[in-house]
Amino acid sequence: MKEKITSGQNKRVKQWRALTSKKGRKATQSYLLEGWHLVQEALKAQLPLTAIMGTAEQLDAHTASFPANVDVFELTDSIAKTLGDTSTPQGIFATAPMPDDTAVDPATATGTWLFLDQVQDPGNIGTMVRTADAAGLTGVVLGQGSASRFLPKVLRSMQGSQFHIQLVEGDLHEWITAFTQRQLPVYGTNLDPQAKDYRDIDALQAGAIVMGNEGNGMAPDLQQLTTRNLYIPIKGQAESLNVAVAAGIVMFRLVG
Amino acid sequence: MKEKITSGQNKRVKQWRALTSKKGRKATQSYLLEGWHLVQEALKAQLPLTAIMGTAEQLDAHTASFPANVDVFELTDSIAKTLGDTSTPQGIFATAPMPDDTAVDPATATGTWLFLDQVQDPGNIGTMVRTADAAGLTGVVLGQGSASRFLPKVLRSMQGSQFHIQLVEGDLHEWITAFTQRQLPVYGTNLDPQAKDYRDIDALQAGAIVMGNEGNGMAPDLQQLTTRNLYIPIKGQAESLNVAVAAGIVMFRLVG
Repeated sequence: MKEKITSGQNKRVKQWRALTSKKGRKATQSYLLEGWHLVQEALKAQLPLTAIMGTAEQLDAHTASFPANVDVFELTDSIAKTLGDTSTPQGIFATAPMPDDTAVDPATATGTWLFLDQVQDPGNIGTMVRTADAAGLTGVVLGQGSASRFLPKVLRSMQGSQFHIQLVEGDLHEWITAFTQRQLPVYGTNLDPQAKDYRDIDALQAGAIVMGNEGNGMAPDLQQLTTRNLYIPIKGQAESLNVAVAAGIVMFRLVG
Repeated sequence: MKEKITSGQNKRVKQWRALTSKKGRKATQSYLLEGWHLVQEALKAQLPLTAIMGTAEQLDAHTASFPANVDVFELTDSIAKTLGDTSTPQGIFATAPMPDDTAVDPATATGTWLFLDQVQDPGNIGTMVRTADAAGLTGVVLGQGSASRFLPKVLRSMQGSQFHIQLVEGDLHEWITAFTQRQLPVYGTNLDPQAKDYRDIDALQAGAIVMGNEGNGMAPDLQQLTTRNLYIPIKGQAESLNVAVAAGIVMFRLVG
C-alpha cells in the first residue's frame, strides 16, 4: 500500500512527530528511524518495520528495497522536514516496533556484554553500541538512568549496530547478580584502590564490562556487586578518558 | 586592572564575540576560552592570558586564582550570555594569544605524535587530543582541512589537554616526510590490502600515528608517505569504528 500525505495535520504525521517523546513512543509502541542508512540497516536485519515514509524523490530512489508488506507513505518536502531531527534531513524515515526487553533473560544470557550505568550523552551511548558490535560483543544493556536508546542522536550514532547485536534496557543489579552467580566475571571500571590494570586481565569469553556515568562513574552499589574493578593507567595530565574511548580500549583488549 | 562593562556595544565585547570566527581570531591574534575548567587549566599551564572576563558572581568566586598582571573585565549577565557558545554558559571567559605553530619544527620534533588528516567533527578532534594526552603522547598535529582547534566545541572536548601536550597546525606531507627521513615510523590507519594488525606492531618510542577523515579515511597521497598502514580487525557487523575510539585503541596499544 502506498498513500500520499499532503497535510501536516494528518493524524499519522502527528503520531510520527510524537515519536520524539517517550509518551509518543509508548502510545504506539514504536519508534522512528531517520535517514536511508538506518532504514536500510533495519531492512537488512529484517526488522518488521510498520511504515516507511519519505519524499517522492527518496521513495523513488529506494523503492526496490522495500518489502511488499510494508505500508509506504509519500510525504511533501515540508512535512518531511517536520519529522527530521537533523538540520539536513534526508527525507526518508521508517517506524519500527519497540523491541521486547523481556526476550533476553539475564539468568540465561551468554557471551560477552557491555553494561551501561547512567551514561547520559547520546553520542557516547551510540558510539559504545557501535564499538561493542565491532569488537564482537553479544549485547549491550542500558541500565536505569541511561539516556534512551530511541533518541535520534543515539539512533544515528549507533549506525545500525543496534540491529546487529542485542540491545536491551534492564536493571543492572539484576544483570550483574545473574552473571556473577553463574561465575561469569563482571568487570567494573571505576577508579578505586583495588582496581586492576585492564591489561592484566585474561580475554573475556563470557561475562560483562560495566561503564559508568560520564561525571560520576559507576554507582557505588553496583560497583560492590562486580567481580573486580579495572582501570586504564593514565600517563599524561588528562584527568580522565572519554567514556566511549575508554570502553573501546577495554572491549578491544578483552574481547575484540 | 579591573573594568566594568555594561554596554553590549562596547568595543571589547564586539571583539570577543568576533572570536568565534576565523577572521575575528586573526584580527586580534587571540581566541576565547569559556568556562572555569578551561580558564583554570590555562592558568595552571601558565598560558599568558590577555584578559579574564566574567559576571560579578563568577569573578568573585575565582578571583584568588587570577594572576596580578591580567586585565579583568566584569560583565553584566546579559553581556556574558552573548559571549557563550553553550546553552548554559558559566559566565566566565578568558582570551589567550594564538599559539605559535612555528615553535615546533617537524625536522627536529621528537617523541610520539598523533597526526589528524581532515578530521571534521569538533568532538572527535577534542576527544583525540584529550586521549593523546592521557596516553602520554608528545603532541598532535592538525593537518590542513581539519576543523579548527579554536572552535568552542573542540576547546570544550579537549578539556584542557591542549595545555598539557603540543598542539599545532601543520602540513602533514611535511611532517610525515620529516619523520620518515629520520627513520621514525609513521603509521597510517587506512584499510588497505597491505595493512597490518595494530597488535602486531612494537610499542612506539618515537614516531606518529595518522588518523583520517571520518568518511573517507586518510588522503591517498599521505598514505603513500607512511611507513606502513595499520588496521583494527572488526569482528562484528559494524562497518567501521568511530575515529576517536579507533585512535584511542591504537594509541593505548602502541604508546599508553
